[in-house]
Amino acid sequence: MDFNFIKAQLNGSNHGKIVLLIMDGLGGLPMEEGGLTELEAAETPHMDALAKRSMLGLHQGIRTGITPGSGPAHLSLFGYDPVKYQVGRGALEALGIDFDLQKQDVAARGNFCTVDEEGRVTDRRAGRIPTEVSERLCKLLNEKVSIPGVEVFLQAVKEYRFLLVIRGEGLQANIEETDPLIVGEKPLPALALDQGSEKAAEIVREFVCQAMEIMKDEHPANMLMLRGFAQLPDWPLFPEVFNLRALAIAMYPMYRGVAKLVGMEALPASHSYEEEIDLLEEQWENYDFFFVHIKKVDSYGEDGAFDKKVHEIEQVDALLPRILNLDPSVLIITGDHSTPSAMKSHSWHPVPVLLHAKTCRPDGIGQFGERACLGGGLGGRFPAYELMPLALAHAGRLEKFGA
Amino acid sequence: MDFNFIKAQLNGSNHGKIVLLIMDGLGGLPMEEGGLTELEAAETPHMDALAKRSMLGLHQGIRTGITPGSGPAHLSLFGYDPVKYQVGRGALEALGIDFDLQKQDVAARGNFCTVDEEGRVTDRRAGRIPTEVSERLCKLLNEKVSIPGVEVFLQAVKEYRFLLVIRGEGLQANIEETDPLIVGEKPLPALALDQGSEKAAEIVREFVCQAMEIMKDEHPANMLMLRGFAQLPDWPLFPEVFNLRALAIAMYPMYRGVAKLVGMEALPASHSYEEEIDLLEEQWENYDFFFVHIKKVDSYGEDGAFDKKVHEIEQVDALLPRILNLDPSVLIITGDHSTPSAMKSHSWHPVPVLLHAKTCRPDGIGQFGERACLGGGLGGRFPAYELMPLALAHAGRLEKFGA
Repeated sequence: MDFNFIKAQLNGSNHGKIVLLIMDGLGGLPMEEGGLTELEAAETPHMDALAKRSMLGLHQGIRTGITPGSGPAHLSLFGYDPVKYQVGRGALEALGIDFDLQKQDVAARGNFCTVDEEGRVTDRRAGRIPTEVSERLCKLLNEKVSIPGVEVFLQAVKEYRFLLVIRGEGLQANIEETDPLIVGEKPLPALALDQGSEKAAEIVREFVCQAMEIMKDEHPANMLMLRGFAQLPDWPLFPEVFNLRALAIAMYPMYRGVAKLVGMEALPASHSYEEEIDLLEEQWENYDFFFVHIKKVDSYGEDGAFDKKVHEIEQVDALLPRILNLDPSVLIITGDHSTPSAMKSHSWHPVPVLLHAKTCRPDGIGQFGERACLGGGLGGRFPAYELMPLALAHAGRLEKFGA
Repeated sequence: MDFNFIKAQLNGSNHGKIVLLIMDGLGGLPMEEGGLTELEAAETPHMDALAKRSMLGLHQGIRTGITPGSGPAHLSLFGYDPVKYQVGRGALEALGIDFDLQKQDVAARGNFCTVDEEGRVTDRRAGRIPTEVSERLCKLLNEKVSIPGVEVFLQAVKEYRFLLVIRGEGLQANIEETDPLIVGEKPLPALALDQGSEKAAEIVREFVCQAMEIMKDEHPANMLMLRGFAQLPDWPLFPEVFNLRALAIAMYPMYRGVAKLVGMEALPASHSYEEEIDLLEEQWENYDFFFVHIKKVDSYGEDGAFDKKVHEIEQVDALLPRILNLDPSVLIITGDHSTPSAMKSHSWHPVPVLLHAKTCRPDGIGQFGERACLGGGLGGRFPAYELMPLALAHAGRLEKFGA
């Protein structure tokens, strides 16, 4: 999608609220031949009744046959072609642990590792040290590392993995990774891959040097390696491109992070779906666009827990009347990708979509499920990033093209 | 669509006639929940019978979610991606009133307006003077304006709006608009925005100067402003790209104009659909491609007159046997965009299409309507500009790609 094209078509209307309700990993598969998918098996009277008055279809997050990661899948739903808009891994890591990454910060993914006396890597994961050990090491390094002119932040992620952030003026992140990727080699020096990244690379090398000294008596994690140097991308921002005051409501930091990446505001809901809908109701007058993220549908898919995934979908269905009571101009219900319990993983299968609006042309299909959606007007394998223009159109926010 | 690609696939056949029957604004919506659209409600025994032997689907004229204007919507049906092929507003205005715009002519949309003694705009529309007053003013200016080396034409459009055309050698149209867009300001000078447009800009300034003098004692329209300077685009022409002698038959100048823009010939039918079909029969041997335009389906949609739109569709259905009697190789029946009576305006909703040919693979759906078309082989949201290659294929005019 061409953002300039869409921007030029905006009619300036500030009416017409849009709700994007994402059940993470919604799409599924039957567990045995001839069976039903999780969504088909779920008893969803509210969604089925709404389907009758809606347009249905199935979207693809990335490209045909490609299994989406959660970050790109959400970008696509927000209207960003994720093949064109790619985020560096370091920045993604920061988003995933709710680190408040700022413009010009250089972020990297780190591994604590073990090296021998000659500095050769003997274990790339330092025996998978527990997260608490990483936390202690990060705290130690945060206290002791000192580099003039910049701030350095370390934050533990999980087990041996941590986040490194360097904050200062004039930093760029085109820096070679230091992980040699095999044992028996020494970590590589952090070399700049272009002139603009020289300053940051020098700081990284100084950091590694100090860290090695500070950690030299630790065991088993006596060294670190860095990968995926990245900065926040300089992308067109969602609220500006689409002229929508946008709010993300999500229980997990990763999803708030992706939303913040495109300029949405984000609020955490700590305990339950009910709390997410409470927030939606409370904030209804303050925003035009609401991304509401439901996590556990995916988690049970990953666990291969078909029945629990079904039950989770049914719980979301029970909340639908509260959302409809708010009378959104456009309500889209979908997932970011498929997570079939039968596969215990994300998959490439298209994801069911329901788009409801007073101005939609209903397909007249009275069920929300993978096979039912095949007959819908949105099509069976359309790019997820086409949902935003459709949402804007149905919210009355686009003008006619040409006379 | 890549015109060079299509051109390279032409097999040089001069057989296989194609009829493109456009009911303007055909697509619709139900007036109330659970109801039928206009096309679904219409009794169309001939189209339904033909549908059974045809391929169905729904097209999008511009892009997903984008409401098409009539000009771009028709360009798309003629095979031109309307986002790539955009016409300047002045040229469009000329087409819309059947002015015979020629290569190198510079056209602009004009407003008659009111200015005070100091030349400041007090009414941008001169109190919406009636068209007859505009006609008198245009006549006056046509007679009195005199600029050496060029011809100047003014033609009233509607109320305070008129068309200005300057005809001469070496003119280009990249010229700043003179409408300040707010009252209390003086009209702006027509400045060239590039060197090639200097000559035309100077002529425009001289024209404005003379016009001001000629109109100074008129009331309320004592001045004019100009916008949308444009020339005819230099596009690949339909008859050459597709190797089709092409004729447009339409009652309204706008639609003949768009057809002429891509190099079709055009004939007016003044009074009725029957007369349009008369012309089709008369001209059958002289052309390969016939674009037949039916206007009033759209007009009743714009009026919100559901029943009248239904009746209009039924009248077109009654004419179908006459078209089928001509035994076209390919007959496409569709609209340029949707104009749901429920919305009283153009809309973004996909438009039903029926493609009949002896060589088509019939879907076996016995009804021509929005929901019926969803099950058709053309797909539910395909780009309108893909219809031309399909028409050529079904007319036996394309060759195999590769050995």
